[in-house]
Order: sequence, then structure tokens, then C-alpha cells
Amino acid sequence: MLEKILRVNALYDFYQPLLTSKQQEYLNLYYLNDFSLGEIAERCQVTRQAVYDNLKRAEGALEAFEKKLGLLRKYQARLSLISELRKQAGRLSVEEHQKLNSVLDKLENLD
Amino acid sequence: MLEKILRVNALYDFYQPLLTSKQQEYLNLYYLNDFSLGEIAERCQVTRQAVYDNLKRAEGALEAFEKKLGLLRKYQARLSLISELRKQAGRLSVEEHQKLNSVLDKLENLD
Repeated sequence: MLEKILRVNALYDFYQPLLTSKQQEYLNLYYLNDFSLGEIAERCQVTRQAVYDNLKRAEGALEAFEKKLGLLRKYQARLSLISELRKQAGRLSVEEHQKLNSVLDKLENLD
Repeated sequence: MLEKILRVNALYDFYQPLLTSKQQEYLNLYYLNDFSLGEIAERCQVTRQAVYDNLKRAEGALEAFEKKLGLLRKYQARLSLISELRKQAGRLSVEEHQKLNSVLDKLENLD
């Protein structure tokens, strides 16, 4: 379950703007704020089943976006290459190392 | 007009999978294969106006995706940082330079 939560959270970071506001609300409450299905149902005045169905649809939408655009996959590949560059930079003089690292920081923070 | 063509092409590279198959077809014919509106209309057996409206909608959809996800903007920022890293690498020994450049090539080719 933890793995699922981490994946949904990671996908949500990339694709949140493409979801409907209701999908965003339910995912926020369930995955980021740890509400139960029943609590979300009460708060949104819908049935527990409706919350469940909407959450499933939202998770499906996130996976569908990832299949189409691969933003999480590319991000992880980028992080791994940036970490390789940091290792290489670690073998250079302090001055060169710092210069490279400052650009690598910017690169890592772009996503 | 050239600027417009280049921008639509660049956005299309990033967001093509999110468009409908009809939007993809019209954009492909008009921007990538230089068909006229009339030629597309004839080929797809619809009116010239329908082609025009669909192209406008598709262009609007591309800009809306870019506003939400900013993939082209981030890609351009990444290219500029990678170019900065290449400049820094150029001042190192040939061996270090080559090692860094080979990882930078991988990073650049991820998108």
C-alpha cells in the first residue's frame, strides 16, 4: 500500500493540472491528507461508492497520462544522470566542483 | 508565420499523445506536411471551414497544455543549463571533459 501511495503522489505531482477539480479534491483528501473514503463521502455529501469510483478513475487517469507522456519515468532517469554528474564533479578541484554543482542544482530544481 | 509554425511543431512534439486522432491528423497534414486547408478538406471529405476550426482548436489545446504543464518551457531551460555545463566541461582535461559530455549527451536526449 505504501508503494501505491508513493506512486500516486509522484504521478499527482506531474499531472495534477490535467485532472478535474473533483479528481484533484478526492486525491488530495485521500492520499495527501489521509482521509478515509467515509470521511470524504461525508465532507462532499456523496456516497462512499461514488468517492471510491472517482478515486479509481483519477488513479487510472494518472497512469494513462504517464503512459502517454512518461514525465515521472523521464524525471527519474534525469535524476540518475544528474547524480552521475555529481559523482564525476566530486573528483574535480573544489572550485570546478562547486561551479558544476551550482548548475546541477538548478537543473534538478527545474521539475 | 514561420515563428508560429516552429512553435506549433515544438508544442506538438511534447503534447501529441494528448490530442485526439483527428487533431493529430490535421496538425500533421497542415504543419508537418504543408497541405493547404483545401487539400486537407478534400482528403478528409469535410468542409474547409471544419478543417480550419479543428486546427484552431488543436492549436488552442496545445497552448492550454503548455500553460498547465510547461514542458516546452522547462525543456528550453534545461537545454540552456546543459549548454552551460558543456562550457564548464570544456575547461577541464580532455578525459574529464569526455566523461562529462557523454552523460550530458544522455541527459539531452532524454526529452
